[in-house]
Amino acid sequence: MKVIRTVKEMSSVTDEFKKRGQTIGFVPTMGYLHEGHTALIDYAKQQCDIVITSIFVNPLQFGPNEDFDQYPRDEERDTELAEKHRVDILFMPSVDEMYPDDTIAKVSIEKRTNCLCGKSRPGHFDGVATVLMKLFHITKADYAYFGLKDAQQFAIVKGFVKDFNLPVHVVGIPTVREKDGLAKSSRNVYLNTNERAEATHLYQSLILAQQFIIDGNQNTDMIREKVTKYLEEHTSGKIDYVDILSYPKLEPITTFDNQFIIAIAVYFNGARLIDNIILDPSGKMIEVIS
Amino acid sequence: MKVIRTVKEMSSVTDEFKKRGQTIGFVPTMGYLHEGHTALIDYAKQQCDIVITSIFVNPLQFGPNEDFDQYPRDEERDTELAEKHRVDILFMPSVDEMYPDDTIAKVSIEKRTNCLCGKSRPGHFDGVATVLMKLFHITKADYAYFGLKDAQQFAIVKGFVKDFNLPVHVVGIPTVREKDGLAKSSRNVYLNTNERAEATHLYQSLILAQQFIIDGNQNTDMIREKVTKYLEEHTSGKIDYVDILSYPKLEPITTFDNQFIIAIAVYFNGARLIDNIILDPSGKMIEVIS
Repeated sequence: MKVIRTVKEMSSVTDEFKKRGQTIGFVPTMGYLHEGHTALIDYAKQQCDIVITSIFVNPLQFGPNEDFDQYPRDEERDTELAEKHRVDILFMPSVDEMYPDDTIAKVSIEKRTNCLCGKSRPGHFDGVATVLMKLFHITKADYAYFGLKDAQQFAIVKGFVKDFNLPVHVVGIPTVREKDGLAKSSRNVYLNTNERAEATHLYQSLILAQQFIIDGNQNTDMIREKVTKYLEEHTSGKIDYVDILSYPKLEPITTFDNQFIIAIAVYFNGARLIDNIILDPSGKMIEVIS
Repeated sequence: MKVIRTVKEMSSVTDEFKKRGQTIGFVPTMGYLHEGHTALIDYAKQQCDIVITSIFVNPLQFGPNEDFDQYPRDEERDTELAEKHRVDILFMPSVDEMYPDDTIAKVSIEKRTNCLCGKSRPGHFDGVATVLMKLFHITKADYAYFGLKDAQQFAIVKGFVKDFNLPVHVVGIPTVREKDGLAKSSRNVYLNTNERAEATHLYQSLILAQQFIIDGNQNTDMIREKVTKYLEEHTSGKIDYVDILSYPKLEPITTFDNQFIIAIAVYFNGARLIDNIILDPSGKMIEVIS
């Protein structure tokens, strides 16, 4: 595995891959890798000749009161894990390398943002889209892999890649979970023992909702209430949102005619956790989206 | 010459060029081609294996009260001219082809806009950058050519291409002029005989300014006043701006330490005309910028 830290070297290396006609798979991350990330890497390894993973905690996607400085980092462990999963290139640029002085442009996302996590994180997805636009160009990715745990992010990436005619196939991979159902997340380390025990109920509440739909219930309001009540009864967290929206457009729905998402976010003292399931109208879980 | 009208066909054709290792030169235009455009095409032909010219009057870069509907169009003549200058691919997509429903993203330009033409055209350069981002991806351009007549546009394109790490070399080509110095422009056809005669004085006013600088004059305010007075005395047009700014950063300057631009815009009844010269501190004209 080669570790690259400059945009210039990364660009010239990917130029070579392209000249040789090799397919490039790209897994963008903010590091502190867990099984959610390595699942993306393993998937990329199956589809592509070369797999590039980036580790970059992107300041542009953190708000002024968010946890940019506190975001967990462990370069040594990440490097070992990437190597173990046979990543070909680990790209770890500095902030200065990615954002030199005198930048004049960013990507603005104008839809799919004013709901779910976007509602409480103004500018977050502009930051995500801007860094990804850069990384797609630098890595010359043919395929890029994202976890569906960040379902809103995936919907937005799908959208802007299409809008800008980017020559990259964006693939969404199912959320990887702990044995008790908790979605893997770098932020899980900040939960205390009690919160960690309660956190399993996020996924349980989604499964409850899915069962209502499989049973033929079509009342989105009622399902939202049931999930909310379940979370209130089973956790000490503060609910940020419980929402049912079309997917990937993320528009309010009252009936289940097309693919949709049930998404939740809960504030614990240690961390804010999110989870979701994407279902077809019959209530069947959608897995890989490409 | 091949005429292509769909994004899909254009993308697959450029995929083939890339596979064969051919260099792609791209000349984006809004059509109604004149010698300003064909100079770009001729330049591209010298540098690249394949030259793609696009003709697309981009609604996104016109304000609600601007001349999108009135912008001159002549597809037949443009096709002949492109063929004559040995363009390989003429890309003429429809508005629906470029902007299908449900777009969610655009490029936002946050600097270099609040001056010169950007001041009176809010959102204009966001529209320019957004369509270029799409066209760069669709054409897979290695080189893209722009006329320095639109110097602010060129400065902004240079900026966002760098910011987003786009793998395209952006080249600025000197303004092509009529014999009397008037910068070639598709909008010149809208000048009446009297305005057309006066229009030569735009360039004359710039040459006057250049001479002041060559003569060692360092007072930017005085030079702006001289140019303004000259334009008022020699034309019936209404001056939009006369400005001296650093280039390409487009920041106000009081001394000539680095490359800078003298730029003017004048409203005639028939059309709004712009012109500029880019100079080094000694007053020497800058030609090609790459």
